[in-house]
Amino acid sequence: MKKALKTFSDPQKLQKWCAARREAGARIALVPTMGYLHEGHLSLIAAARKKGADEIVVSVFVNPVQFGPNEDYEKYPRDEKADLAKCRAAGATAVFFPTPANMYLDGYSTYITEETLAAGLCGARRPGHFRGVCTVVAKLFNIVHPHLAVFGQKDFQQAAVIKRMVRDLNFDVQIVVSPIVREPSGLARSSRNTYLSDDERTRAVALSQALRLAKADVAAEGSVPWRACRAKIVKMLEKAGLTVDYVEAVDSETLAPVKTLAKGVAVLLAVWCGKTRLIDNIEL
Amino acid sequence: MKKALKTFSDPQKLQKWCAARREAGARIALVPTMGYLHEGHLSLIAAARKKGADEIVVSVFVNPVQFGPNEDYEKYPRDEKADLAKCRAAGATAVFFPTPANMYLDGYSTYITEETLAAGLCGARRPGHFRGVCTVVAKLFNIVHPHLAVFGQKDFQQAAVIKRMVRDLNFDVQIVVSPIVREPSGLARSSRNTYLSDDERTRAVALSQALRLAKADVAAEGSVPWRACRAKIVKMLEKAGLTVDYVEAVDSETLAPVKTLAKGVAVLLAVWCGKTRLIDNIEL
Repeated sequence: MKKALKTFSDPQKLQKWCAARREAGARIALVPTMGYLHEGHLSLIAAARKKGADEIVVSVFVNPVQFGPNEDYEKYPRDEKADLAKCRAAGATAVFFPTPANMYLDGYSTYITEETLAAGLCGARRPGHFRGVCTVVAKLFNIVHPHLAVFGQKDFQQAAVIKRMVRDLNFDVQIVVSPIVREPSGLARSSRNTYLSDDERTRAVALSQALRLAKADVAAEGSVPWRACRAKIVKMLEKAGLTVDYVEAVDSETLAPVKTLAKGVAVLLAVWCGKTRLIDNIEL
Repeated sequence: MKKALKTFSDPQKLQKWCAARREAGARIALVPTMGYLHEGHLSLIAAARKKGADEIVVSVFVNPVQFGPNEDYEKYPRDEKADLAKCRAAGATAVFFPTPANMYLDGYSTYITEETLAAGLCGARRPGHFRGVCTVVAKLFNIVHPHLAVFGQKDFQQAAVIKRMVRDLNFDVQIVVSPIVREPSGLARSSRNTYLSDDERTRAVALSQALRLAKADVAAEGSVPWRACRAKIVKMLEKAGLTVDYVEAVDSETLAPVKTLAKGVAVLLAVWCGKTRLIDNIEL
């Protein structure tokens, strides 16, 4: 039996509804997204259903605070109507479409920073990005007060930062990290893939190929010096005409750089494919 | 009928207990303190009772993160046994005595900053102070998930910063600000008064006298140029042998400086009395 899909744009109304549902005994899941939903997002909703959530709240919000001044906030793709239909089909029970004005009231002045895990990788290249992410996620947690929240492993560093914030600030929320969903070519699903030309889309396949290379190396040899493997990956990416932003191997929990690929290590990369910045990762 | 007084030191155990009490329909109040309780604190507990709270959780925690490196964290007065007895007598139902180690786990790295209201006054003189306050209060909110939380008006700027944080981060917590409790001499109750010698305690009466002067001026004349009034206040404080840290008149909500004393304005001051820093304020 499918429930009716509720929609909210007012944080206070959603907060009230969630509190009432929680009081009535419902188990609530939150799936935070920036919309323009693809199969990756839908897998997060499916993961929430699998965890036995009675109410699945999907937030759709292109959060201005996590974009830098020269980033793609304005052109980030949006399609609320399609998102709503996809949420309904995937089994969400509520969709939250806030506006920047009702999330960041006049004189907004409170921010959350995670200072260790957010310092490197994307955090170093996108100053203020994780400050924006932590702030909006904490706001969503306080509005929805979910039992669990589902994030995609595609944003590996984001998931690690959120888990740290949850631990540090004592949020009573279980964080579920759901595997990357890929296109048949291997390209990780991303709303930003819509920016790619046909040619760029073909070249972007090198990201996942490079990560499979690292995995195969470790599978064959148990542990592998990162320096040598990194060189092979960079070569492969550059051969595909991609510009490397970073290629790093880190401890999958602390995100501290490692010198040897082995189990428990994650390889993370960010590249420019034309004017589009793409990220991908693999946990070994 | 008085309830038994529960004590907790483990944040997770308190969180679980509070969640169960809330689920059972109890209305929960939080009274955050740094302990060494005096009548000011007890008035906060009384305010929580008056608001109809079924459970009143008093936290007693000298929060290291809100002290600067040259401040009085180490020597701040502590007396857990007396605090417990006072909480029981005042009608608290739970006391939370966490340790720095279980509030700030290994590798702790997440902080909350309020960037506008916390910038001036005590925030300007105590860098990082309100970052520590916001962080620990958000943690306590997430642990206790109270319906209401009571703060003292004595820390006027703190109450304003907390209210802003609650608004900005969508905390579903009602903030109650309770009036300053004074000694018969007019001296505002503070755990730090214990630092004062008899002579200093006599001189410290000038703080409340100076504030009453501002109030009397406005009562007599309706609105008063701040510049002239400020000069009188400074003179009075200096005559008592106090060293002025700041004397400011601000809008009581935005904490923006004003040029004229009138209704809705707060006069805030901080002085050094020997080696002890004292604050006091009045809302006109």
